Amino acid sequence: MDIYTVIKKRRDVRSWFDDRVIPENVIAKILMAAHYAPSVGFSQPWNFIMIKDISTRNKIKNLVIEKRKEFESNLSEEKKSLFSDIKIEGIMESYMNIAVTCDFERSGPDIIGRSTIKETSEYSAVLAIENMWLAARSENIGIGWISFFNPEDVKKILKIPENIKLVAYLAMGYLKEEHDIPELQEKKWKDRMQLEDLIFSEKWNNKPDGQLIKSIKNTYL
Amino acid sequence: MDIYTVIKKRRDVRSWFDDRVIPENVIAKILMAAHYAPSVGFSQPWNFIMIKDISTRNKIKNLVIEKRKEFESNLSEEKKSLFSDIKIEGIMESYMNIAVTCDFERSGPDIIGRSTIKETSEYSAVLAIENMWLAARSENIGIGWISFFNPEDVKKILKIPENIKLVAYLAMGYLKEEHDIPELQEKKWKDRMQLEDLIFSEKWNNKPDGQLIKSIKNTYL
Repeated sequence: MDIYTVIKKRRDVRSWFDDRVIPENVIAKILMAAHYAPSVGFSQPWNFIMIKDISTRNKIKNLVIEKRKEFESNLSEEKKSLFSDIKIEGIMESYMNIAVTCDFERSGPDIIGRSTIKETSEYSAVLAIENMWLAARSENIGIGWISFFNPEDVKKILKIPENIKLVAYLAMGYLKEEHDIPELQEKKWKDRMQLEDLIFSEKWNNKPDGQLIKSIKNTYL
Repeated sequence: MDIYTVIKKRRDVRSWFDDRVIPENVIAKILMAAHYAPSVGFSQPWNFIMIKDISTRNKIKNLVIEKRKEFESNLSEEKKSLFSDIKIEGIMESYMNIAVTCDFERSGPDIIGRSTIKETSEYSAVLAIENMWLAARSENIGIGWISFFNPEDVKKILKIPENIKLVAYLAMGYLKEEHDIPELQEKKWKDRMQLEDLIFSEKWNNKPDGQLIKSIKNTYL
């Protein structure tokens, strides 16, 4: 699938999974796409834990349910009503879950480009996640990123050592529906912003010239 | 260009830029690809500052030169000799630079999925960077991520407010050469790891079954 088509069709999926089996050669391709991501000093600090076990998933789902309640209790009445209709995870409905971690010591201690900015290690794992997300979408497989938990609780469940950072917990499965816009936009939580309002020239807050603004307004994915 | 081809051909570019003009409609497409990245709670926390000005770039290049010296002085003699041959930035040789920032307050205070993990905001900007990187590559344009500086020094030069985080500083330009493997691998700094060693099943350190390992070994991008 063409890169721009994949980027346009990729969604953060919660509600649109089915549980059809993903063949192992397809899983291998998606993981290999992740592994070809850029990483600071070519350190490749990522690991991928694939989770199918129902009782493990149930434990993590329970953490999410608790944090959802906490978040909901702090919302205004209007937002509470909008939020009640929004699904925040597809842990059980997806075919499998994938935890992505970052090992700050991998390829160390002399990691080119890391001495000044430690976060570049975990950023590398995030770049790998986007590769995985796009590769999956090209296989008609959706991914959803779930973050309604204390990462330390998930690390305990998955036996992840203290010095390893949990960067993301993902649900992955074949798509039963295609949606043109993000679920949070469909449900009136938040609109897509105008790209031209987010671009500056030479320094912060300095608007780019009219020609680029015009090009942006004429660009649709 | 097909998604897997782009992922395979994408490199972190320092040495292979030329300074041909990138048309504004191509820049617009690449930025739009970034803007279509996933973001926590659809918060879209990113801004993109496009830098062409030579004196601004020179100031940032000088920061990099200083930090390179610092890094080099801590290396063993053997690594120093390898490192001396490695270029770490293409700030001046590229057509333009792009700073990518994260605004933690954007779309707040009630950002779905952010209450538990604050870093998901800056991770969103990183996902956008990978979209940009891949879209650029499909246009025969390379990107290099530069991190040899104290981010606060770059923020001052670009007048980025205190509450905004500088996530990345990128150089972007047309490619004059295609390389099959990363520059750090070519220069014998670091090899690509075996993906099968980075995959676990159900929990940390638990090896996946033989069928998946076999599939991974048979997968080439």
